[in-house]
Amino acid sequence: PQMAENEALSRRQKVLTIDTMNANIKKVEYAVRGPIVQRAVQIEKELKEGVKKPFNEVIKANIGDAHAMGQRPVTFFRQVLALCSYPELLDDDKFPEDTKYRAQRILKACGGSSIGAYTASQGIECVRQDVSRYIERRDGGVPCDPDNIYLTTGASDGIVTMLKLLTAGEGRTRTGVMIPIPQYPLYSAAIAELGAVQLNYYLDEDKCWGLDISELQRSLQAASKHCNPRVLCIINPGNPTGQVQSRERIEDVIRFAAKERLFLMADEVYQDNVYAEGCKFYSFKKVLYEMGPEYFNTVELASFHSTSKCYMGECGMRGGYMEVINMDSEVKAQLTKLVSVRLCPPVPGQALMALVTNSPQPGEPSHAQFLKERTATLGDLAQKAKLTEEILNTVPGIRCNPVQGAMYSFPQITLPERAIREAKEKGQAPDMFYCMKLLEETGICLVPGSGFGQKEGTYHFRMTILPPADKLKILLSKVKEFHQRFTKCYS
Amino acid sequence: PQMAENEALSRRQKVLTIDTMNANIKKVEYAVRGPIVQRAVQIEKELKEGVKKPFNEVIKANIGDAHAMGQRPVTFFRQVLALCSYPELLDDDKFPEDTKYRAQRILKACGGSSIGAYTASQGIECVRQDVSRYIERRDGGVPCDPDNIYLTTGASDGIVTMLKLLTAGEGRTRTGVMIPIPQYPLYSAAIAELGAVQLNYYLDEDKCWGLDISELQRSLQAASKHCNPRVLCIINPGNPTGQVQSRERIEDVIRFAAKERLFLMADEVYQDNVYAEGCKFYSFKKVLYEMGPEYFNTVELASFHSTSKCYMGECGMRGGYMEVINMDSEVKAQLTKLVSVRLCPPVPGQALMALVTNSPQPGEPSHAQFLKERTATLGDLAQKAKLTEEILNTVPGIRCNPVQGAMYSFPQITLPERAIREAKEKGQAPDMFYCMKLLEETGICLVPGSGFGQKEGTYHFRMTILPPADKLKILLSKVKEFHQRFTKCYS
Repeated sequence: PQMAENEALSRRQKVLTIDTMNANIKKVEYAVRGPIVQRAVQIEKELKEGVKKPFNEVIKANIGDAHAMGQRPVTFFRQVLALCSYPELLDDDKFPEDTKYRAQRILKACGGSSIGAYTASQGIECVRQDVSRYIERRDGGVPCDPDNIYLTTGASDGIVTMLKLLTAGEGRTRTGVMIPIPQYPLYSAAIAELGAVQLNYYLDEDKCWGLDISELQRSLQAASKHCNPRVLCIINPGNPTGQVQSRERIEDVIRFAAKERLFLMADEVYQDNVYAEGCKFYSFKKVLYEMGPEYFNTVELASFHSTSKCYMGECGMRGGYMEVINMDSEVKAQLTKLVSVRLCPPVPGQALMALVTNSPQPGEPSHAQFLKERTATLGDLAQKAKLTEEILNTVPGIRCNPVQGAMYSFPQITLPERAIREAKEKGQAPDMFYCMKLLEETGICLVPGSGFGQKEGTYHFRMTILPPADKLKILLSKVKEFHQRFTKCYS
Repeated sequence: PQMAENEALSRRQKVLTIDTMNANIKKVEYAVRGPIVQRAVQIEKELKEGVKKPFNEVIKANIGDAHAMGQRPVTFFRQVLALCSYPELLDDDKFPEDTKYRAQRILKACGGSSIGAYTASQGIECVRQDVSRYIERRDGGVPCDPDNIYLTTGASDGIVTMLKLLTAGEGRTRTGVMIPIPQYPLYSAAIAELGAVQLNYYLDEDKCWGLDISELQRSLQAASKHCNPRVLCIINPGNPTGQVQSRERIEDVIRFAAKERLFLMADEVYQDNVYAEGCKFYSFKKVLYEMGPEYFNTVELASFHSTSKCYMGECGMRGGYMEVINMDSEVKAQLTKLVSVRLCPPVPGQALMALVTNSPQPGEPSHAQFLKERTATLGDLAQKAKLTEEILNTVPGIRCNPVQGAMYSFPQITLPERAIREAKEKGQAPDMFYCMKLLEETGICLVPGSGFGQKEGTYHFRMTILPPADKLKILLSKVKEFHQRFTKCYS
């Protein structure tokens, strides 16, 4: 009791305590790196220390971290980054000419020809030009102004920055932000931190996680009494749900946003990750343009991309960009000012973004290998997407939509009543209870659906499709065995 | 009028306008990249396009951007970064063994042995260990726990994150943050963005920008009626003012923070940049420790460092760390959660931080060259600090304190009454008026003192000491000529 008292005393004396800290931060949750991942890290340490477990390694299928799962970096990217880091290598014969040309171009755009110099806060100008030409090619010629491109520290940075600009008002006039459920929890975390109002619209699991305009309407209507809904966030291809939006549906969404005067935020970081037959990635920008000037000249849109996903998987580089369309010029000046406070995005990430958007062309020495590596990675992911869906759907009590795109499956799991009760008694979400048990028994680390949001009374998990095919098969068969065991045990 | 009407109409229709955006962001100012720098960039473009000017190049002495000013990167750092980027080079004979060993150690700590993988959100564990051993050596053995180290995206990221945690309350209970005037404008910008209350304490220009405890007391007293002062920020060595705090003064500040229950934030990014005889860098951590357990076990402190300054100057890498002392364990868990939302700091910056804090040791192949490069850079900076002070003080109407440390001089300039009037008529701060004229007439880009804050009725500019010595001399003599011309013209 004396010790507890001392501790209480010392806590009372602290300036910064759980009671006196920023209350919004307390509300932030980020399941992708939440308690289950912390436990996974602990288990890894225990394994290293020789603690006996029913498995030899932890498989982290909780996060879209391609290189950590064994995907090799693209040779061309890394050669150029090495040249930019240590330009003395420009004399080295083992680097192809096009890698040297790219490195020199980037270095020339850097102060003192060093990637150690600050760049313009919006990003290096020639990189923004590369990005805008990439967007034009991607969108079949829709014009893109480099002045509308802001390079960012991963896509997360851009998304948070935009939400920050958009958050205003108090009480009933506070900005409401519509997000899909299930969502990628960066959105709920940023909304909580900013004290904005989270407005859920539910994706339809029975229609392959489709987006229904009447559901958007419902969500908006329910919200308009207690806040000022101003933003509509779309994740396409979907995270964690893996669906790919059709062109028609994107048109519907744009029409809805125009009618209801919502600022559109399109998270398109998985734009190269489309696997299912008949599915194709359409950017919101392209569709907006093709709907004609009535839309293209009025609807406000920010679109986000990153070096972390697609075939690159360069998460650690924290490269990204956003494109802003129809942003008010005064607001844009404010945005430019705001990003200047953080000086500039990391230059290696900017350089990488230049390479991603201006990759080797036919005739250049690196082209063949680049193409081979990219094709192999995307082909491999497509196979694993199919494999994951197929194996999971063989398990009674697991139902998995097609993984049309992105890097995740988000299957629904049926949990026995007794497991749900036991979880609730422990104060845990039932799917957290399930995933924790899975981790302890098999070493497999997944994220419970409750971390992304789901329809009341349904349970899911998110699993990446990133492990190498042989490992993925083992993982899936372990999940299968576990699910059967778990179901039996609690039935 | 029709066009104006159309524009007004189109503006009214936008979701996000200057009137509906986040009001706090509008209050953000960041002079280091403000209007004067935008104009400098414009002039550079004009020069390129062949527009005739009374000068051939713009010299940007506005920002502490060492590589842009011609400082060469440290060879050892860049060799290791190249190896980390493209590990195929590990077979290459031209890289010294110790660069390979460091690269392998970093790669081994990365998922899939790739710097493209996400790391722990707090930073790679072995890097945090390097940092903590560095701190222990720096502070003569004061213990440092790697769990208290958070790697960051430059120091700015850490500073903003800490201010974010500390900002709470509404109205009279809103968090007040004490900052020096003149200050580095990241502080005022972050405070504005968070809607915290900025509390100024003035440094004493007549005492070499010394910090006076009675001034801290005055500032605190004045504030306590309208907010809840909880944080005291110190920049040592000073930015923009270049002073180095004595050990005794740091003790006084710590005693003041303890007595007044303030959370201490120590911005120590210039810790290697100490030039003046008799001056020495003491970390707040070390002094706190040596004041005994009464202080060391209670005073809450966050200290910030970066790869951008000192002899490294690797601004573009966005590497940094913060150490938190006596942070409440629940708050620490919240901090860890908060940083996890952004996934991880850029890995090249983390790797660089490992190299800075675990640099080549005697006996290692890279040691001699490393030492030579570091010594040359720091020696050169010391010379330029002296040179700047001396030349500026030869100009009637310019008075410059010794540049004891950091990378800037912040001289006071006497402006003729007529210039002040003319500036005010134009709605400009008088020192902005002065710096703009300087830029237009000489191509030299400095930051007006008003961007950092200064005593009412005094005027200053901040100038980096970074240009190469020969260029710096030209720059200083141009400033001298300009000041004389300006004074004459407006007298």
